[in-house]
Amino acid sequence: MAVLTGVGVGLGVASGPVARMADPLPAPADEPSTRTPDEEKQRAHEALEAVARDLEQRGEHAGGTAQEVLEAQAMMAEDPSLADDIDDRIAGGKTAERAVHDAFATFQETLAAMGGYLGERAADLGDVAQRVLARLAGVSAPGVPDPGHPFVLVARDLSPADTALLDLDQVLAVVTTEGGPTSHTAILAREKSIVAVVGVAEAASLAEGQTVIVDAAAGAVTVDPTSDQVAEATARAEKRRTAAAAPATPGALKDGTAVPLLANLGKSDDAAAARDLGAEGVGLFRTEFLFLNSSEAPTVADQQATYEQLLAGFAGCKVVVRVLDAGADKPLAFLNDDVEENPALGLRGIRVLRAREQILRDQLTALAQADAATAARGEGADLWVMAPMVATVEETEYFTSLARELGIKTPGVMVEVPACALLADRILAVADFASIGTNDLTQYTLAADRLLGSVASLQDPWHPAVLRLVQEVGAAGRAAGKPVGICGEAAADPLLAVVLVGLGATSLSMAPSALADVRASLAEHTLDDARSIAEAALAADGAASARAAAQAAASQTAAA
Amino acid sequence: MAVLTGVGVGLGVASGPVARMADPLPAPADEPSTRTPDEEKQRAHEALEAVARDLEQRGEHAGGTAQEVLEAQAMMAEDPSLADDIDDRIAGGKTAERAVHDAFATFQETLAAMGGYLGERAADLGDVAQRVLARLAGVSAPGVPDPGHPFVLVARDLSPADTALLDLDQVLAVVTTEGGPTSHTAILAREKSIVAVVGVAEAASLAEGQTVIVDAAAGAVTVDPTSDQVAEATARAEKRRTAAAAPATPGALKDGTAVPLLANLGKSDDAAAARDLGAEGVGLFRTEFLFLNSSEAPTVADQQATYEQLLAGFAGCKVVVRVLDAGADKPLAFLNDDVEENPALGLRGIRVLRAREQILRDQLTALAQADAATAARGEGADLWVMAPMVATVEETEYFTSLARELGIKTPGVMVEVPACALLADRILAVADFASIGTNDLTQYTLAADRLLGSVASLQDPWHPAVLRLVQEVGAAGRAAGKPVGICGEAAADPLLAVVLVGLGATSLSMAPSALADVRASLAEHTLDDARSIAEAALAADGAASARAAAQAAASQTAAA
Repeated sequence: MAVLTGVGVGLGVASGPVARMADPLPAPADEPSTRTPDEEKQRAHEALEAVARDLEQRGEHAGGTAQEVLEAQAMMAEDPSLADDIDDRIAGGKTAERAVHDAFATFQETLAAMGGYLGERAADLGDVAQRVLARLAGVSAPGVPDPGHPFVLVARDLSPADTALLDLDQVLAVVTTEGGPTSHTAILAREKSIVAVVGVAEAASLAEGQTVIVDAAAGAVTVDPTSDQVAEATARAEKRRTAAAAPATPGALKDGTAVPLLANLGKSDDAAAARDLGAEGVGLFRTEFLFLNSSEAPTVADQQATYEQLLAGFAGCKVVVRVLDAGADKPLAFLNDDVEENPALGLRGIRVLRAREQILRDQLTALAQADAATAARGEGADLWVMAPMVATVEETEYFTSLARELGIKTPGVMVEVPACALLADRILAVADFASIGTNDLTQYTLAADRLLGSVASLQDPWHPAVLRLVQEVGAAGRAAGKPVGICGEAAADPLLAVVLVGLGATSLSMAPSALADVRASLAEHTLDDARSIAEAALAADGAASARAAAQAAASQTAAA
Repeated sequence: MAVLTGVGVGLGVASGPVARMADPLPAPADEPSTRTPDEEKQRAHEALEAVARDLEQRGEHAGGTAQEVLEAQAMMAEDPSLADDIDDRIAGGKTAERAVHDAFATFQETLAAMGGYLGERAADLGDVAQRVLARLAGVSAPGVPDPGHPFVLVARDLSPADTALLDLDQVLAVVTTEGGPTSHTAILAREKSIVAVVGVAEAASLAEGQTVIVDAAAGAVTVDPTSDQVAEATARAEKRRTAAAAPATPGALKDGTAVPLLANLGKSDDAAAARDLGAEGVGLFRTEFLFLNSSEAPTVADQQATYEQLLAGFAGCKVVVRVLDAGADKPLAFLNDDVEENPALGLRGIRVLRAREQILRDQLTALAQADAATAARGEGADLWVMAPMVATVEETEYFTSLARELGIKTPGVMVEVPACALLADRILAVADFASIGTNDLTQYTLAADRLLGSVASLQDPWHPAVLRLVQEVGAAGRAAGKPVGICGEAAADPLLAVVLVGLGATSLSMAPSALADVRASLAEHTLDDARSIAEAALAADGAASARAAAQAAASQTAAA
């Protein structure tokens, strides 16, 4: 028995026999063409077009995020500069196969060299190339195997086309040897609640038919497990299914302490789905989508309509909206076009809004008007509005006074910068609430880019230094009598959620798919339990030992 | 009276009448040449060569850092790709003047777009272009004015050539409208102890002959000051001169508490100058220079020779060496050639050394052998060795155990990452000492790039959140009985130095030119004073109010 480690996606667990994805096609031979260049060009263009059509059809069939991804791939297949490059190579005497292979490889290298999000798109491009080569060779594209029974899929990295069409009745779990937490395998597995562990380099050695347990919560793949281990995994999976199927009650600890469970949303039409999963409100409504596809900021009226839809969808509930968080990995051309060497440490969040105050004023005005309009119709929500990347008391004063001036009743701040957590007592004397964004807070506290694979091991919200900062904010909130929410991914980890409540968090916001697991976990512990579990984690030396200490403390209190 | 603000360089103060730098030459007219292309090319080449020779001569005359800068500029004038570009433009019908102007401007834009350090080099290139154009026009290059009496020089940005040859008897202070804290004006003003405030945009409105007080410590330029203000500035300047002229005693508080004052050094041949200024040892010896100019790491023997020279230069004193700090703004091709989106949050410091352990092993071996060899000759120092960018207890264990295995007696860590400060109690249970790098610590705590002008206002070590982290480390050091030094630029601020000691720092390391001011400041306060001054700063809302609170507390305790 061996345990292989990687990055878990979600919290599921599953076990079953391995089925491996077919290896990629071999590189086509680099020999002179026996056809005329025009014939080769026609072959290449036909294959590119056929693949583009196929990807579009798969997209229509899949819908949702998968469709967007597959359409992006279809556009890669139709890229005119790629087509020109292929033509040039054919004019230089290459076969269509070789020209396609070389042109895609060159483009892929360029993307990979960019690193980060774009770098991870290189895999998508490689998948398109494979499909075009398969089409030229008249063979079927490498894809998901079909062993005739449920299986754990092991692959280098799944293409969006593969992931979108996975037969969920057959695929028990997915393990990839490559791909990070922002790869499409991870994104789509998260969306479709597929049990997945990505970036497991050693999974390359797994054999067809070998039994494994894939534990996403632990980021582990257990090879050739004992029957006890399989039984335990099956019981855990069953417990998760039961919890997910249970009627969604409000979030609360075992002793009845209410811990509202809220949804992180990026679009107002996701509201109904979130409510179905038991969201008691919205803890983080991201507004970037309103700004992303335009060369200038949206009008007040356009924004107001969106906000009204959101508030009406959560009438009577709390809705926390984050004003535009631009900069860094979310550049908006009309806001900030300076090249920055370290955009994550640059002019982003409240910093850039302040430099372009009219955009902030318009957004706050639209929010206040939407609030008034929905309230007048009797479908109002409890609107709170917060600023991202606040680092100082002075920035807090700036944002809250501007927000109040423009009619926002409850202005607050996101705590993502260590300085903001360290001065939480002074910040909460000014702001009405704080919401901790654990992803960025961890990134800055550990000085480790959250999108960079080589430092991924440092990017762990279980690190006691991050917990210390959460504790500071929690204590300041208690002292000031003001709420402290969590809206980073940490809140979606059922055990960490208990720790965060023990540290003083008064509400938790997460992807709606995580609500059931967290609800079940909170119900197992009292507030006193949560505090002692948090103390155990805080006293640890590092992230792994904090998690282990919390686990041990949780078993103890659950047993008591 | 108006007060203009900018970034102060050093701590001096001076007053006097303004003299403005001549404006740059106008862009040459874009009209057809009346000469043959060959004649124009010859003119251009002669001017480029003459300017290169002139810059080299100025460099030889100036020596030191100025020489390196001027030689770099001379190389710009001799750059073959620039010469080719000029030739191409002349072949296209341009005059030599226009071709030089356009070619340099293009190159300059490319550099400026890179931002950061390279972006600031664009100004150096612009200066070379001006000199070549002046040479072609047969006029003297725009340069430092000579009004016949001492003056405050006001300029857009000084070129290295100008700065290097400033007549210090005539130039009372320098104010620039452009240029940041890493511009050459700032670097060279620091080295030559010229009173300077850079980046004062409003200084463009200062008139010839207008009286100003230039206060580098406050980053302020007072226009048309009152006679009382002038008298106060003169008294402060006089006090500084007296302190600098006093014999260099060991650093100590008023009550006799020793606070060793150490030097930050980047080359072993700077040792003698540092000792002359009263350095009691070395608090930070940077080793990057050993690695910068080679395509592979230096040998153990080469490194050992350098370290022996360093240790012998400080025989009997404490010498703290930092192992290679590569990555981010200090990329070394042979160590880390991945493109990172946020290099400051990437694979740098101990992270990259760990990934390339042989380099670390070689460096530690060379240090241990140099320690043994100098001790055997009776000229040994007390060698401490520290790792940069440590974020976790686990990294601390890794570094200290490897260092001890290789013969280093006193291994420690630099505290630059907030997590390291927050876990200082657990880190100092493993490491023999901690040294706080306030520049990076501030950068991460405020999530503000230390080299980015648009967020410069956040990059202030007076921020109470940074002081809180220093306090955490100080308290952990006291509890563990282990030393906590400061080696960031904060230690060079005389008032902040007192605060840092109040927070628990046991030694301060700085650029040797700052030692006299800090020594004088420490001597004015007891340890109890320092603690109450630190408390006042900690309780403040922000950086400016922390400084003001410390100032007020310091006046009180000094008066008591």
